[in-house]
Amino acid sequence: MAAHPAPGGPDPALFANLLCDWCVEPQAGQQVLVSSTSLAAPLLLELQRALLERGAWPLLRIGLPGQEEGFWAAAREAHVDGFAPLGLTEVEGADCSIGIQAPDNTRALTGVPPDRLARAARARRPLREARMRRRWCATLWPTPALAQQASMSLGDFSSFVRRALFLDREDPVAAWRELGRFQAGLVERLSQADELRLEAAGTDLHLRVGGRTWINSDGRRNMPSGEVFTGPHERSATGRVSFTVPASPGGVEVSGVQLELRDGEVVEARAEHGEDYLRQILATDDGARRLGELGVGTNFGIDRPVGSILLDEKIGGTVHVALGRSYPETGGVNESAVHWDLICDLREGGRLTADGEVVQEDGSFR
Amino acid sequence: MAAHPAPGGPDPALFANLLCDWCVEPQAGQQVLVSSTSLAAPLLLELQRALLERGAWPLLRIGLPGQEEGFWAAAREAHVDGFAPLGLTEVEGADCSIGIQAPDNTRALTGVPPDRLARAARARRPLREARMRRRWCATLWPTPALAQQASMSLGDFSSFVRRALFLDREDPVAAWRELGRFQAGLVERLSQADELRLEAAGTDLHLRVGGRTWINSDGRRNMPSGEVFTGPHERSATGRVSFTVPASPGGVEVSGVQLELRDGEVVEARAEHGEDYLRQILATDDGARRLGELGVGTNFGIDRPVGSILLDEKIGGTVHVALGRSYPETGGVNESAVHWDLICDLREGGRLTADGEVVQEDGSFR
Repeated sequence: MAAHPAPGGPDPALFANLLCDWCVEPQAGQQVLVSSTSLAAPLLLELQRALLERGAWPLLRIGLPGQEEGFWAAAREAHVDGFAPLGLTEVEGADCSIGIQAPDNTRALTGVPPDRLARAARARRPLREARMRRRWCATLWPTPALAQQASMSLGDFSSFVRRALFLDREDPVAAWRELGRFQAGLVERLSQADELRLEAAGTDLHLRVGGRTWINSDGRRNMPSGEVFTGPHERSATGRVSFTVPASPGGVEVSGVQLELRDGEVVEARAEHGEDYLRQILATDDGARRLGELGVGTNFGIDRPVGSILLDEKIGGTVHVALGRSYPETGGVNESAVHWDLICDLREGGRLTADGEVVQEDGSFR
Repeated sequence: MAAHPAPGGPDPALFANLLCDWCVEPQAGQQVLVSSTSLAAPLLLELQRALLERGAWPLLRIGLPGQEEGFWAAAREAHVDGFAPLGLTEVEGADCSIGIQAPDNTRALTGVPPDRLARAARARRPLREARMRRRWCATLWPTPALAQQASMSLGDFSSFVRRALFLDREDPVAAWRELGRFQAGLVERLSQADELRLEAAGTDLHLRVGGRTWINSDGRRNMPSGEVFTGPHERSATGRVSFTVPASPGGVEVSGVQLELRDGEVVEARAEHGEDYLRQILATDDGARRLGELGVGTNFGIDRPVGSILLDEKIGGTVHVALGRSYPETGGVNESAVHWDLICDLREGGRLTADGEVVQEDGSFR
């Protein structure tokens, strides 16, 4: 039967209204593709209601617990290297899409050979690109698996997600609009800067961003969001940086990462856990040893890392850099198969300065 | 989480294989639309496996408990009188479809005004017609709601469904093929007959079928099936007939129905329960007072009525007639908005004769 929302978690009706009124703003007659699993039933039913009330057509695409691993267990070569033609027809015919992470097991694909996953990712690129050409939003619904990944009870994780989404505020849409305005000011200020310096325990990193575009990520695409980011100059990063928030890209826990960079390139790398994996990532291609992104988290509803990059990189009071690929809209030109966000927490002592002026210190913006 | 199949119920892997190897026979590369609810999860996951193993693309369209009533609670006029364009694109692009009834509440739409349901049925006719133009199969997965409708425990109902599907046989596909062969013989015999006579307690009905086509319903479209049927001559039915199996079309229980017919037309009608509803149905249009179908049930895996016409009309040892619309492929020409199957059980004493020769007596074929 339908899973019930945990007490204290996001109210599914308010959440659905937020997704409609802030994130995708569906018009009457539009077809809205909604993808998730049956574990998100409370939100999905409210989203159906909210979309119908706005005259739109909800197209719910609901996966089952175990369906994805079942796909990989039985997939033939043609399934790995292709996709159902109707999958593309659907994405191209829809006006916008909402993707809701609600996994039953965040490690379900651990046993699938990585090269098969990579082949499938390449084959499905037309699907991703078609989806990105329309208005889209990526969000999450608290499930036991996500709570487990965060080392939290479902109740605590659900309350955490509610705060991250600003669904504890009186008017969530107004709260997101306000954050967007704050970030617009930050973007204006940072756009005039050339040299950024990041300082914290074990960290003193210089990099240049002059002329690059800063993006105001205000929750319309990622929900929750709360970051501004750009692509630094590829040969500028110099110094050392210590990442205090663990990451688990590809299902491997990596923590205590320390990098030394010179003229934009990583020249030394260590990790307390997962050092082999870190070295493997850095060896992927030339771009994997350079920084493709620098982002500043502004969401103070997110107060701790939970092992999910969608949330962790938005923590108010943190700064993250990504090894690998730049987002082209920033003007960044670093190319790589890798895009790995690593987070530096400044809340326990640290600061970000722009052309010598403090932007954020000890987790607070100036 | 995924519902587990009840012990003693249909094995989901065998069921999925039967749907593939007997009902829709998917070819490599074909796109197979599978519609159901998350309550059918065990079967859906096995069907995904079976389709992938055969090189086909499973397109699972999974509804949630409460989704349909939620649709009706929030639907605007445009939603009642139309459908999402991508819904038709999908049906037209798919190679075949499998619909699996797995309701969470068989009375969920009781409160929806009947005229709204009728408008939606009319509006969605292009969807139905497009689906019928391709290979299709309609089946069911045992849920608590279906068991409740049958006044059975889920365990007992699941075992019943397993037998109805021939999944208790060593080789279910061979069992269906064998039933198909038996029915082919029955069709051959009945095709040569003109006058049929149905006799039982309270029943003595004559009707003519000469020149009409008999259909061998062998489980490829309805799973389970097990019936042969035709469309009788519209002005032929004369006599009286007593229906001993309760029916509940449109959610209203009707039982103890007795009809008297003259020259094809119902001239007197009574019911122990639901007589008002019966009269209302008969008054729908001219065709509603004539018989559009006569069918002979042959599935001895179905040994009792369970309140679902998909199953009840197939009971081995019963004969059913339908008030209203004929299936055009039978040569029957009765037209009506109604098609209501009423079942006459011959197992406790009764017989069907064709041109004076016994076809079935006391529930056994001669």
